[in-house]
Amino acid sequence: MNEEMTAVDSVMKQAQQAYDVYGALSGAEKAAFLDAIAAAIEARREALVTIAGKETNLPPARLNGELSRTTGQLKLFGQLLREGSWVEAAIDTANATRTPARPDIRKMLVPLGPVVVFGASNFPFAFSTAGGDTASALAAGCPVILKAHSAHAATSAMVFEAITEAIETTGVPEFTVQHVMGRGNTVGKALVQHPLTTAVGFTGSFSGGKALCNYSNEREKPVPVFAEMSSINPVVFFPDTLEKNTAELAKQYAASITLGMGQFCTNPGLLLAIESDALEQFIHLLGAEIAAVAPQKMLHKGICESYNELREGMLTQQGLEVVATAAQDAHDMEALPTLARVKAADFLANPHFSEEVFGPFSLVITCQSREQLKQVLAKLKGQLTTTVMATPADLAEYKDVIKLQQSLAGRIMINNVPTGVEVCAAMVHGGPYPATTDARFTSVGLSSIQRWVRPLCFQNFPDELLPDELKQDNPLSIWRLVDNEWKQ
Amino acid sequence: MNEEMTAVDSVMKQAQQAYDVYGALSGAEKAAFLDAIAAAIEARREALVTIAGKETNLPPARLNGELSRTTGQLKLFGQLLREGSWVEAAIDTANATRTPARPDIRKMLVPLGPVVVFGASNFPFAFSTAGGDTASALAAGCPVILKAHSAHAATSAMVFEAITEAIETTGVPEFTVQHVMGRGNTVGKALVQHPLTTAVGFTGSFSGGKALCNYSNEREKPVPVFAEMSSINPVVFFPDTLEKNTAELAKQYAASITLGMGQFCTNPGLLLAIESDALEQFIHLLGAEIAAVAPQKMLHKGICESYNELREGMLTQQGLEVVATAAQDAHDMEALPTLARVKAADFLANPHFSEEVFGPFSLVITCQSREQLKQVLAKLKGQLTTTVMATPADLAEYKDVIKLQQSLAGRIMINNVPTGVEVCAAMVHGGPYPATTDARFTSVGLSSIQRWVRPLCFQNFPDELLPDELKQDNPLSIWRLVDNEWKQ
Repeated sequence: MNEEMTAVDSVMKQAQQAYDVYGALSGAEKAAFLDAIAAAIEARREALVTIAGKETNLPPARLNGELSRTTGQLKLFGQLLREGSWVEAAIDTANATRTPARPDIRKMLVPLGPVVVFGASNFPFAFSTAGGDTASALAAGCPVILKAHSAHAATSAMVFEAITEAIETTGVPEFTVQHVMGRGNTVGKALVQHPLTTAVGFTGSFSGGKALCNYSNEREKPVPVFAEMSSINPVVFFPDTLEKNTAELAKQYAASITLGMGQFCTNPGLLLAIESDALEQFIHLLGAEIAAVAPQKMLHKGICESYNELREGMLTQQGLEVVATAAQDAHDMEALPTLARVKAADFLANPHFSEEVFGPFSLVITCQSREQLKQVLAKLKGQLTTTVMATPADLAEYKDVIKLQQSLAGRIMINNVPTGVEVCAAMVHGGPYPATTDARFTSVGLSSIQRWVRPLCFQNFPDELLPDELKQDNPLSIWRLVDNEWKQ
Repeated sequence: MNEEMTAVDSVMKQAQQAYDVYGALSGAEKAAFLDAIAAAIEARREALVTIAGKETNLPPARLNGELSRTTGQLKLFGQLLREGSWVEAAIDTANATRTPARPDIRKMLVPLGPVVVFGASNFPFAFSTAGGDTASALAAGCPVILKAHSAHAATSAMVFEAITEAIETTGVPEFTVQHVMGRGNTVGKALVQHPLTTAVGFTGSFSGGKALCNYSNEREKPVPVFAEMSSINPVVFFPDTLEKNTAELAKQYAASITLGMGQFCTNPGLLLAIESDALEQFIHLLGAEIAAVAPQKMLHKGICESYNELREGMLTQQGLEVVATAAQDAHDMEALPTLARVKAADFLANPHFSEEVFGPFSLVITCQSREQLKQVLAKLKGQLTTTVMATPADLAEYKDVIKLQQSLAGRIMINNVPTGVEVCAAMVHGGPYPATTDARFTSVGLSSIQRWVRPLCFQNFPDELLPDELKQDNPLSIWRLVDNEWKQ
C-alpha cells in the first residue's frame, strides 16, 4: 500500500468508528449537529464568499444566495429529523390466532454506513463540502468522507473548518465528517473501492459519474453510486405562446441560458418548437438577447477549455447554423454565450446533437410538424428537467406531447425556466439515465435522504429492545403505518 | 437479428405499447386487475397444485399454502392501490411573496416502464409467474415480461393462462403481462439488454443475479436489477437459552433446516454459539433430529446435483466435522440432510465456509469466546436474515453482539426461525450485498413496489393537468405531505 492508500484506509476506518456512535444518535442530536454546521458557516459568510469568489469567479450575490441555500438546506434536514416520520416506520402486530401464528413485525429506515461525497465544481457551497449530499447523508446517520473539488479547495477547507467547529461544539464523534484532498482519480477511486464505503454521492460530468459507477461495479461488493451527470433540459415552446409572448419568452430564456454563464445542470440546452413565423421571430429576438450578454469568466480554466471544445465540436456538425454569439469577445477563461439552430431531421440523424455542452450554449430544434417534435422527444436521453412553455390553448391541444415529456425527466414544469431548483419535500432533482445513475432517487430536497438508508425489519422483538421509532407507545409521536393504517 | 432476438424485440415493443395505457390506469383499475388474477388462479387451484407437484416434487400442503400466499399477495397490493397513499405525494405550495417567488411544486411516484421478471425455481407460485415481483410491478403500473423458469414451465404456463383470463375480463391492454420461455441465457440476456426494458427482478443464485447485473451494466443505459441472490442466515444461540432450552431449540431448528428440503433463501445455514457443555448437548440433539429426517426429492435434478456438489465441497474443508446426516440413504434427486461443525478459528481462516450450500445443510460454528463470536459475525457477508435465540438474561448481556447482527441483514428476529416470510407492510426481504443487489429495497411486502417507481415532480402545473393524486382538493383522499405536514 502506498502513502495515499494508507491515508484512505485510515480515513475509512475512522469513519466506521464514527458510524458506530453517530449512526445511533437520535434525530434531535443529529439535528443539533446540522444546525451547528449551518451556524458555523453563517459565522464565516463574508470570508467564505470572498474566498469562493476568488476560486470560482462567481459574483458575491450568487455566492451569498448559494450560501443561504446551503445553510437553509442543513436546517431543513434538521426539521425533518426533529419531526422524525421520515424513517417510514411500519408495524404489523402479532396475530396468535392465525395459522400459522403471525409474529410481531416492525421496520424502519436505518443508515447504510460511511458515505463518500464528491464536491461539485459548479456549486462551491450547495453541492460541495456541506452541500446537499453531505446534509442528507448526515441526516440519515451516515458519516461523510468529503472529497474536495480541487477547483475550490480553499473554500472547501474553510467550510470544513466550520464543520469541525460544529463537531466540537455538539460533541458528535470527531470523524463524523472528514475532508480529503487529492488531484486526479487515484484517491477518488480508492475511496469508492474501500470495503468500508457503503455509498457514493456525486454531481458532475457524465464521464466522471460513469467512472465512479465502474469503480463500484469492480468491487467484490458493489455499493450504490448516486451520480447526477448530464442533462440538456429540453424546453418545448408551443405555437400559441410563441405567437402571443414572443419577446417576453426570448428575454426570459436568454436570462436562463446565460445565468451563471450556463454552469447549471438545469441549464436549458435544447429548445424545441414547430416551425412558424413566430418561431423565426422568437429565434431572432433570443439571438439578439444572447448577443447582448457580456462574456464572463467561467468557474475554472478546465471548464472553460471544455466548453470551447464542446462548443466547437457542436458548431462543426452538419446542418447546424449559428444564430448568435455574444457581440463582445471572450477573453481569458470567459465563455462566449452562443445560440444555434438545427432542423429536426438533422437532429434525428445525428446523436451528437444530444450531447451536453456545459456552459451558455443552447440549440434550437425546428420541427416540421407535431409528429416530428414527438420523434425528437422520443429520441432524447433521460433528463433532469423538461419544460412546457404554453398558453391554456396549447395545453389543451398538445396533451400527447406533454405526456411524452413526462416520461423523459425527473421534473416537468409549465411556464417556468428550469434553472432554480427549490429545496423542499416535493423537489425531484433526478431523472432517467444518464441524467442520474438511478431515476428512483433525487439529490435535492428532503427525499434525497433515501439514497443513504435501508429498511431494517425487527421481528418478535421485546418492546424495550426496539428503537424508539418502533416502540409500541410511539414515544417520538411520529407517523407510522400500523396494521396498514397511518397513525400518529 | 436471429429469430429469438426478433421475438424479444416484439415482446418489448408490445410491452411498451401496453405501458402507454396500463401505466396511466387508476389505482382502482389496477386493483381490479390484480384481484382478477388472484381469482383466476384460485379457480385453477387443484390443477395448478397437481402440475406444480409433478414439476417441483413439492408436496400438496406446501403448494396449497404457497398458492394462497400468492393470491393473498395480489389482493394485498390491490388494497394498497385502492387506499392510494403509497405514491408518496408531496406538495409545496407557491409563495409569491418570497424572493425569489416560489412556484407550486408537487411530486408523486410513477411507474418506470416495462419490467422483466425471472421466475424462481424454488417458489413455482409465490416468486414466479404471478409472484411477488410481478404483483408489485403490476401494482406500480409496469407491464411485466415474465421469463418462465424451465424447471416448472407447465405450471408457469397455466398461471399465465389465469393472467390472460384476467386481462380479458378486466380489459387491461393485451400485452400488460407476457410470458417468455427459453432455456439458457440467450433470451434472458436479450430481455435485460433490450432498450425498452426499464428494470429487472430476479430471485435465485448469486451467479445468476450477478450475470444479470453485468448484462445491465453493459447497456448504454443501465437499468436497476433487483436480484435476491444468496444468504446463509446466521443464527446465534446465546448461552442461557442453550442451557435452558436445549432440546426444544434442537427440535425447532431441525425442522427449520429441513423444511422443504432446505430450499428456502431464508434457510438457517449457519448456527453460531460460544463453546459450552450445553452447546455440545444441543449439537448432539440437533444431529439426532437431522439423522431422523427422511431424505426427500429436491425441486429438480440440477438443484440436487448442485447441492451434492456444494455439500461435498464443504465437507472436504480443513477443520469441518460432520455431526450427522440423515440415517436413510438418499435416492434419485433426494437430498441428504446434513449437519456439520467447525471451530471459529478455522471458519475465520477459510472464506469457503461462508458460501451457501442451497439445501438441507447447516454448519455450526463453535466460538471460544464472545470476542471470537463477534469476529465471526464481522466477517460475514450481507444476509437476508439473522436470528437471535436468547433468554431475557441473554438479551441483557449480549447487546453488542445483537448490534453487530443488525448491521448484517435486512431482517433480525428474536426467538423465531428465519424460514417463513410474512407478506406485510413491515416485512423486509432484502439485505446488504450479496443477499441482494441493493439493500435499499425489499422483494417481499408492500414496500417491494418501490423498486419499480420513480418520483416525478410537477412544477407550476394548472390543477386540471395534475394527476388526481396531486390535485388541490385531494379527490382520492390519500395521505400527502403538504407544506411539510401530513394531511389526508
